[in-house]
Amino acid sequence: MNFSSKLLESAVNEVSQLPGIGKRTALRLVLHLLKQPKSQTHQLAGALTNLVDDIKLCKKCHNISDVEVCEICANPMRNSEIICVVEDVRDVMAIENTAQFKGLYHVLGGKISPVEGIGPHNLTIESLVEKVKKGDVKELIFALSSTIEGDTTNFYIYKQIEKFKIETSTIARGIAVGDELEYADEITLGRSIVNRIPFDKSL
Amino acid sequence: MNFSSKLLESAVNEVSQLPGIGKRTALRLVLHLLKQPKSQTHQLAGALTNLVDDIKLCKKCHNISDVEVCEICANPMRNSEIICVVEDVRDVMAIENTAQFKGLYHVLGGKISPVEGIGPHNLTIESLVEKVKKGDVKELIFALSSTIEGDTTNFYIYKQIEKFKIETSTIARGIAVGDELEYADEITLGRSIVNRIPFDKSL
Repeated sequence: MNFSSKLLESAVNEVSQLPGIGKRTALRLVLHLLKQPKSQTHQLAGALTNLVDDIKLCKKCHNISDVEVCEICANPMRNSEIICVVEDVRDVMAIENTAQFKGLYHVLGGKISPVEGIGPHNLTIESLVEKVKKGDVKELIFALSSTIEGDTTNFYIYKQIEKFKIETSTIARGIAVGDELEYADEITLGRSIVNRIPFDKSL
Repeated sequence: MNFSSKLLESAVNEVSQLPGIGKRTALRLVLHLLKQPKSQTHQLAGALTNLVDDIKLCKKCHNISDVEVCEICANPMRNSEIICVVEDVRDVMAIENTAQFKGLYHVLGGKISPVEGIGPHNLTIESLVEKVKKGDVKELIFALSSTIEGDTTNFYIYKQIEKFKIETSTIARGIAVGDELEYADEITLGRSIVNRIPFDKSL
């Protein structure tokens, strides 16, 4: 691209560093900002800077938080004996939106993935094992995505905590509510048959 | 969305103000920034703030520029008697990339569009007419997009400068280089036949 302005060029270069945003999209976004009142860009820049400067990770569950211990961990109404193990903050938000879970979370910060160079020590597995060791946890729910990396991570954690004899479970895999059987993939459909549940429990 | 952090929420809200970016994409972008070194976000925020604070419009052609008169207008090698009328800075960049045009530009800042509430006085048409009036311009090339708004804007400008008896032209509309005839729309194909050019000039 042939920029008439260094300021424009540098803004476009910075924006195009974001994932999924190429130079053309970056240019469109930047030109949009130029048409808006300056205050909008100042607010955007301020919000991003404040975020990276002041954000904390909850020292209990490693979720993103404004304070040392996040709202969920600090809530005495929640059951601290059940811990749901998730990959990142998006999963916490997704599960919170269902309003079906009243325990606490443990955010791993990723999945074990040798291809991407992420090993167990890059994740918060050690502090999870520590929690279980203390004896405060009765059940661990694995809610990682159903991929090779997710399954590997589940298995790795399971091996670490096996000896403490607590309950472990994974979230159910099956046909999504509202989906037609004919469009389901074979593995999901197969699992939904193997892991079938008594009809009176499904009502 | 159920945010665990006000800082995260405000960053996501600001990013999702950008065109074509919803809350989910905004969250993905913001979480990406959190995984990067802080300096990347500081650079991004700085580049955007500097841009909106310090950017100028060239006082001759109204193109985006770091200085009072842009590089193109200030270049003595360019032919100041031919002016290409375009909608915005992206069109200038696109035409500059072809390296086929050695004249100057005039950036209108949009097209006349009653639906969006954009009238002739919201554009830089007056200063274009002024240039033509001074007698320094020999040819005006209309390079607006081929839409009702583009054609209306062309026609409005044409009516304003008709009396000064300068040459006017529009960029050629026709089958794109490399395109198959069978996939061309009828209006474009029709125009390409009406505006056919001598074969020896097309080589």
